[in-house]
Amino acid sequence: MTEATETTEATEAAVGQQDHDDHHGAHDGPHGYASDKTGYLKRMRRIEGQVRGIARMIDEDEYCIDVLTQVSAVTKALQAVSLALVEDHLGHCVVDAAKASDAEGAAKVREASEAIARLVRM
Amino acid sequence: MTEATETTEATEAAVGQQDHDDHHGAHDGPHGYASDKTGYLKRMRRIEGQVRGIARMIDEDEYCIDVLTQVSAVTKALQAVSLALVEDHLGHCVVDAAKASDAEGAAKVREASEAIARLVRM
Amino acid sequence: MTEATETTEATEAAVGQQDHDDHHGAHDGPHGYASDKTGYLKRMRRIEGQVRGIARMIDEDEYCIDVLTQVSAVTKALQAVSLALVEDHLGHCVVDAAKASDAEGAAKVREASEAIARLVRM
Amino acid sequence: MTEATETTEATEAAVGQQDHDDHHGAHDGPHGYASDKTGYLKRMRRIEGQVRGIARMIDEDEYCIDVLTQVSAVTKALQAVSLALVEDHLGHCVVDAAKASDAEGAAKVREASEAIARLVRM
Repeated sequence: MTEATETTEATEAAVGQQDHDDHHGAHDGPHGYASDKTGYLKRMRRIEGQVRGIARMIDEDEYCIDVLTQVSAVTKALQAVSLALVEDHLGHCVVDAAKASDAEGAAKVREASEAIARLVRM
Repeated sequence: MTEATETTEATEAAVGQQDHDDHHGAHDGPHGYASDKTGYLKRMRRIEGQVRGIARMIDEDEYCIDVLTQVSAVTKALQAVSLALVEDHLGHCVVDAAKASDAEGAAKVREASEAIARLVRM
Repeated sequence: MTEATETTEATEAAVGQQDHDDHHGAHDGPHGYASDKTGYLKRMRRIEGQVRGIARMIDEDEYCIDVLTQVSAVTKALQAVSLALVEDHLGHCVVDAAKASDAEGAAKVREASEAIARLVRM
Repeated sequence: MTEATETTEATEAAVGQQDHDDHHGAHDGPHGYASDKTGYLKRMRRIEGQVRGIARMIDEDEYCIDVLTQVSAVTKALQAVSLALVEDHLGHCVVDAAKASDAEGAAKVREASEAIARLVRM
């Protein structure tokens, strides 16, 4: 399995999160996307299939522009997932934090804004 | 294997290309990315692993913001692939067409510009 | 003054807002960006000067790539303004709505998410 | 006039270009956008008016989301200008360079690809 070496970044992020989770305090409950976990998993599996499809196109020497069109389609699908995650996060984690205390609300807004900036600045 | 149903879009695109290839005429030769096919395939396999890593994060209820960070990283990786494909396409297919005739050059520039627009407008 | 005809879109948006304001209800107070109005106005004036600078570059037949670099710089500056507006909006309007009631919070989150999507999908 | 200080960046870019122009050699002729200079100038003046309209909205305390919508509209207009400049540049400067020599073609493709990357990575 080559997968293990290929997901180093994802693994590192997962490790980084442990640390994160320790600080969640009152927000240990279900995350923003919990209500539609199945939907998100289905979208990610579909995207995985599309990525595999692009590799196949390259392997079969498809025309550059057609490969590009598929890469743009997958990028768009990932951005749609990001936007859904942002909305779920604002609607659950940020709203809950705002109701808990001004400080928690401000911290979550700051964190969400940084994530949105990463999304826009790509 | 669920893959077959998940890559419907990619498959359709591949079918659409058959048609495309018929019109390539003089440009049937190796595509822009041919010189680094192995490199592209490696990048796509790495991205596939990252996508699988995100599904795992969602499945294990990781924190929304950490999932978002990973989705942004994969989107960025896909955009880097797109930009490399554009450069290879300009440097081979577009340059070759420009040398072949004004009409072919103009047609390839038009097509490349539309692909770049899809990339920017995402 | 040609300005009047050139800002038709902005004017229409302003008219659309009247309507908007009527529904603000409890949120008639200062907007998210109110605390740094001077800062935002300064940034917009700077961007206006940069846009004028690009027109001058085109008028003086500067090299395409240099014009493009400047257009990218202004687009980046506008995106930075957007991200600051989003953060101020989340930190004030959305947090206030969340504290007021679940329904108001949900409505503001929906509206903010749509604005963020317009920002990302550009 | 505050304009002078506000366009420092644009001015610096213009100075940087002097240097650029010295190396154009055979490509001193009209730039890619020359055939539609009037069209580009009109678009830039329209964008300048829209930027001024946004400043007015902020000054009159318009609702954050409405300001954001206008900023997104202007960003979109600037991206459309960028894409038009890219297409004109590819169709003239890059095609001409490709016909002149392999080395000139490769250099222009490299330069254009970097400009496209700045556009996408914003």
